[in-house]
Amino acid sequence: MMMSNNCHGWAARDDSGLLSPYEFERRSVGDNDVSVKITHCGVCYADVAYTRNKRKNTVYPVVPGHEIVGIVQEVGDEVSKFKIGDHVGVGPFVDSCRECVYCNVGHEEHCSKTTVTINGTCKDGTLSKGGYSSFIVVHDRYCYKILDKYPLALAAPLLCAGVTVYNPMIHHKMNQPGKSLGVVGLGGLGHMAVKFGKAFGLNVTVFSTSISKKDDALNMLKADKFVLSSDKEKMAALSKSLDFIIDTASGDHSLDLYMSLLKTGGVLALVGFPGEQLKLNPLSLLMEMRSVSGSAVGGTKGTQEMLELCAEHEIHPEIEVIPIQYANEALERLQKNDVKYRFVIDIENSLE
Amino acid sequence: MMMSNNCHGWAARDDSGLLSPYEFERRSVGDNDVSVKITHCGVCYADVAYTRNKRKNTVYPVVPGHEIVGIVQEVGDEVSKFKIGDHVGVGPFVDSCRECVYCNVGHEEHCSKTTVTINGTCKDGTLSKGGYSSFIVVHDRYCYKILDKYPLALAAPLLCAGVTVYNPMIHHKMNQPGKSLGVVGLGGLGHMAVKFGKAFGLNVTVFSTSISKKDDALNMLKADKFVLSSDKEKMAALSKSLDFIIDTASGDHSLDLYMSLLKTGGVLALVGFPGEQLKLNPLSLLMEMRSVSGSAVGGTKGTQEMLELCAEHEIHPEIEVIPIQYANEALERLQKNDVKYRFVIDIENSLE
Repeated sequence: MMMSNNCHGWAARDDSGLLSPYEFERRSVGDNDVSVKITHCGVCYADVAYTRNKRKNTVYPVVPGHEIVGIVQEVGDEVSKFKIGDHVGVGPFVDSCRECVYCNVGHEEHCSKTTVTINGTCKDGTLSKGGYSSFIVVHDRYCYKILDKYPLALAAPLLCAGVTVYNPMIHHKMNQPGKSLGVVGLGGLGHMAVKFGKAFGLNVTVFSTSISKKDDALNMLKADKFVLSSDKEKMAALSKSLDFIIDTASGDHSLDLYMSLLKTGGVLALVGFPGEQLKLNPLSLLMEMRSVSGSAVGGTKGTQEMLELCAEHEIHPEIEVIPIQYANEALERLQKNDVKYRFVIDIENSLE
Repeated sequence: MMMSNNCHGWAARDDSGLLSPYEFERRSVGDNDVSVKITHCGVCYADVAYTRNKRKNTVYPVVPGHEIVGIVQEVGDEVSKFKIGDHVGVGPFVDSCRECVYCNVGHEEHCSKTTVTINGTCKDGTLSKGGYSSFIVVHDRYCYKILDKYPLALAAPLLCAGVTVYNPMIHHKMNQPGKSLGVVGLGGLGHMAVKFGKAFGLNVTVFSTSISKKDDALNMLKADKFVLSSDKEKMAALSKSLDFIIDTASGDHSLDLYMSLLKTGGVLALVGFPGEQLKLNPLSLLMEMRSVSGSAVGGTKGTQEMLELCAEHEIHPEIEVIPIQYANEALERLQKNDVKYRFVIDIENSLE
């Protein structure tokens, strides 16, 4: 067992969230660990939340980033799943108990002992540090194979945004060709929902508050329909027409309008956070046997499946590649939803 | 085709909701109709709502009652399903379009042209009149067979309360032996949920705000557990322990406490009406992939299935049989939840 080198990264030091260069030690590579040279890291809203202490539990310095991709540079003695040179990804968690009912079925995201990738407590008591850094050491269970043909930069957003959308789509059986899907909000999550929807053979309607998204929705993402959610007439015409809705919009909004678009027995899955109190009249559920559900990230099983689906169907997120030196501005822009559709930091070529 | 006799019933004349004797004409028996001599009618909260104009659409005089059972006294020329003397039931609707996707699968409750049994608009333009009356004439599609061995008085509450609970239990696959079910509220709906739960082989926990329900829950209804919902310690001990919850409580209450009792992926089905705005933090859904759903009544397919299940498993509602002359007091008591657990009017022996 050799000691890993010092790790270079960028960290926030206080709740201003301002990132700056930071050096720290990663643990040495254990028998079941892999060390991954990070090439790219996606910028997720979680990075805003951790750096700015929005959940009131950040311990500084904090190194954000949980959409991590790179190349295996070292493997432990017991690792057979990966070899040096493999392309791999790491998502929002880097450990779990590995023996509960959830771990046993590859849904570690529900394990009560999960160690999250940013600001999480590792088994050795140290705090986990994310992917705005030169390399990461993880147990091979929490590391995903990325096919060589799939561009690494494009793979980064799949590790969180991708699986966050994919997971509820599979859980609620939205992968049935010919069914209809509404996607509320067209950001990092929403644009992935459209792409998965089209890959599953669904008829996809995008709902947005901004007409500026129309062209991308229809021409770039190939949605079947775009509707301004403020257009009462068009919304009314879609009453009871959809099998499923994925609601990716964050911030306060009523669900009643969208629920009315679902057929009897339809399901709306929340993946955004619509304020601390759901705005929903129970009659929206009672009269048509509709359901509202929620989901966050996904487990190792779903993540690996989703990565393979994306390779097979050439499902590529739309990204804006940036150098690490632009990360502070990127986090500011992300808070204004000013990104098409995911920032990905080119760690390999910009982190010194 | 012969004209039916005048029908005797009890009706409310204004929004005081006070019921008094009322005579009216039922339509003559058409080719596909059956005429049912009503023996019993259950008292549902809908009767309170219609008589007191709570939905602001009551046309007076209104004859309430949509948990109707009785004996076939006449059949139309085309009716082969029933013969004179058969025991039958009629529930909350008496007509529908018979050609839409919902009608085609026996889920007429979702048909947009359903004629409800009370205060509904019939195809001939007249207003439907319910089961607080001596007989009813309905198309045979909306009439259910009740086995001779099943007591008619006990069958009445099945037609609305029974199927309202049964329908979401089947839809959400709660009929899996060994799974766990929470039942919130122990009234007309809740006590049926416990009975169905036990018949399905579920481990059933009853949640109530009133300790007075404990004895009935455990000893009469054979629930496995009773928990006062105000008992914070016991509630906390049940965190993430239930597969399903049926929430039958009406009136304003937060769902967060109950959602926290559901396992990952668990489903809470609303059948009561918890106020006009759901009280629910989206995190209750997001973090554990839980769902909240709703349901109201059921269709012809589910109703007939449920009646057969009740006969097979001897699932008998707990009822208090009353004469029609007690109906006004019963509606008052129902508003105070002062009934164990369903009033059933003995039409046959008390209506003159």
